[in-house]
Amino acid sequence: MKKVGFIGLGIMGGPMAKNLLNAGVDLTVCDLNASIVEQFAAAGAKQGTAAEIGASCDVIFTILPNGGIVQEIFFGENGVASTVRPGAVVCDCSSVTPQESQSCFEKFQKMGVGFVDAPVSGGEPKAIDGTLAFMAGGREADFDTLKPFFDHMGASAMLVGESGSGSVTKLANQVIVNLNIAAVSEAFVLASKAGVDPWKVYQAIRGGLAGSVILDAKLPKIVDRDFKPGGTITVNHKDIKNVLATAHAIDVPLPLTAQLFEIMQSLKVSGHMDDDHCGLIQYFERLADVTVQSSRTN
Amino acid sequence: MKKVGFIGLGIMGGPMAKNLLNAGVDLTVCDLNASIVEQFAAAGAKQGTAAEIGASCDVIFTILPNGGIVQEIFFGENGVASTVRPGAVVCDCSSVTPQESQSCFEKFQKMGVGFVDAPVSGGEPKAIDGTLAFMAGGREADFDTLKPFFDHMGASAMLVGESGSGSVTKLANQVIVNLNIAAVSEAFVLASKAGVDPWKVYQAIRGGLAGSVILDAKLPKIVDRDFKPGGTITVNHKDIKNVLATAHAIDVPLPLTAQLFEIMQSLKVSGHMDDDHCGLIQYFERLADVTVQSSRTN
Repeated sequence: MKKVGFIGLGIMGGPMAKNLLNAGVDLTVCDLNASIVEQFAAAGAKQGTAAEIGASCDVIFTILPNGGIVQEIFFGENGVASTVRPGAVVCDCSSVTPQESQSCFEKFQKMGVGFVDAPVSGGEPKAIDGTLAFMAGGREADFDTLKPFFDHMGASAMLVGESGSGSVTKLANQVIVNLNIAAVSEAFVLASKAGVDPWKVYQAIRGGLAGSVILDAKLPKIVDRDFKPGGTITVNHKDIKNVLATAHAIDVPLPLTAQLFEIMQSLKVSGHMDDDHCGLIQYFERLADVTVQSSRTN
Repeated sequence: MKKVGFIGLGIMGGPMAKNLLNAGVDLTVCDLNASIVEQFAAAGAKQGTAAEIGASCDVIFTILPNGGIVQEIFFGENGVASTVRPGAVVCDCSSVTPQESQSCFEKFQKMGVGFVDAPVSGGEPKAIDGTLAFMAGGREADFDTLKPFFDHMGASAMLVGESGSGSVTKLANQVIVNLNIAAVSEAFVLASKAGVDPWKVYQAIRGGLAGSVILDAKLPKIVDRDFKPGGTITVNHKDIKNVLATAHAIDVPLPLTAQLFEIMQSLKVSGHMDDDHCGLIQYFERLADVTVQSSRTN
């Protein structure tokens, strides 16, 4: 039975590791937060440092806040790479740039260690339900090693291409998600200031070409003024920053995404970073001095 | 049995009027194109000028290329208003500004004539199938008069609010549709230049938060390099121009939509206006010198 390490027990990593544990996986966990590690220990997991996980595990998952922390956990002093054994497979589910993913792949490859970038989509609710979507980049054999564990944590896992492809796919996903929120925002700010009930506009257009998962998930929250996250603007701001870093590295001008990032910067200034990412609409509402709300009756 | 007039037998109006005729409606049609009028005559419709339709019909539908032509047909010399009878109901399905719709409403109201703005969503295929969505603005009694005819031409008709609300809703719809196409464009240009197969990216993200009717309808066309319309950039360019005119009239700053309009202007210069609106991606492809294509396998 493979020994599995899991580093990063945050909003996403916590429930993901819990689903591995519930599936009977031999699990060793690591996090800076001692109380969450104790909860896992009480539930039957072992606890270990990054180096101890490197020394003892066949498969190692990480999901961490940003690429800098990922680098430190892997290649810093007493990191995973200081002890990891040839033949092990490391899978980083953090949302980072493809350049960072490829760099990890190359360093681990030299040690005879497999590496797959596999960021997730679905957010906290799907992490809890075990219905995440994994977007993976790397070698097929390493993906196959990880597949049974993806299945414990997600509804789908797809090998999109070579190393970095998972991170590229996640960034492409975030461009669409956040620009679509901005699109919905401009549309409903316009309709609201024109005096039309946004809930009726929503009912009229949701079944047509304007229909999207974002529209159905976020418009009800917006008209109810419910900006509790879900995925925060903080997290999406970091992803869009990574999009632009990647686009700048490979020369892809992204005029709308660049403007979106400046909009997020403005929301940072006005203190909205902990809102759900649909809180983006507050930027457009402020520009037009209008609030998108409704006495919705369904 | 109500006498119905239909003015404007173009790509949308032609099949809409045909569905009225097929439902047994007593129909008089009018269009500049003599051959399409003859086809309708051969199929049992009467033909008449705008003034003749005004004089004889209880219900009058129009669907015309822009607000200037609508004004001319209604209020120009020998227009509908020169002969229309009190108690008649006029319904304009053209995509125009809410200001234009409200102006028509007020002029007809003074004559004792009802007016409803009811632009449609769904495009040519749904016009043919009789499954359009009507977004209506006006008085409930007038909407009720029109409802049986909407039912012959569409899958749904919703009274969104007072006069102009239908046009507002259509414009909001077009903001979301076209900005979402731009979002999909930036995402897939990035992924393609990063070396990832766009078809695999599509498969990986379509089930998540990035999922939309636009993504499913347009990404296959994009990777197949099929820019045959559907809805042309010409039509959407006019709608986005109307969005900005409306936004300027009621002071709603729309930074992304404004940039979208400039992108469409650039596509006008490069000769892409007759492409399907997903041809918008060609602007972003040119910026990045990359083509989004795939050897898709299903």
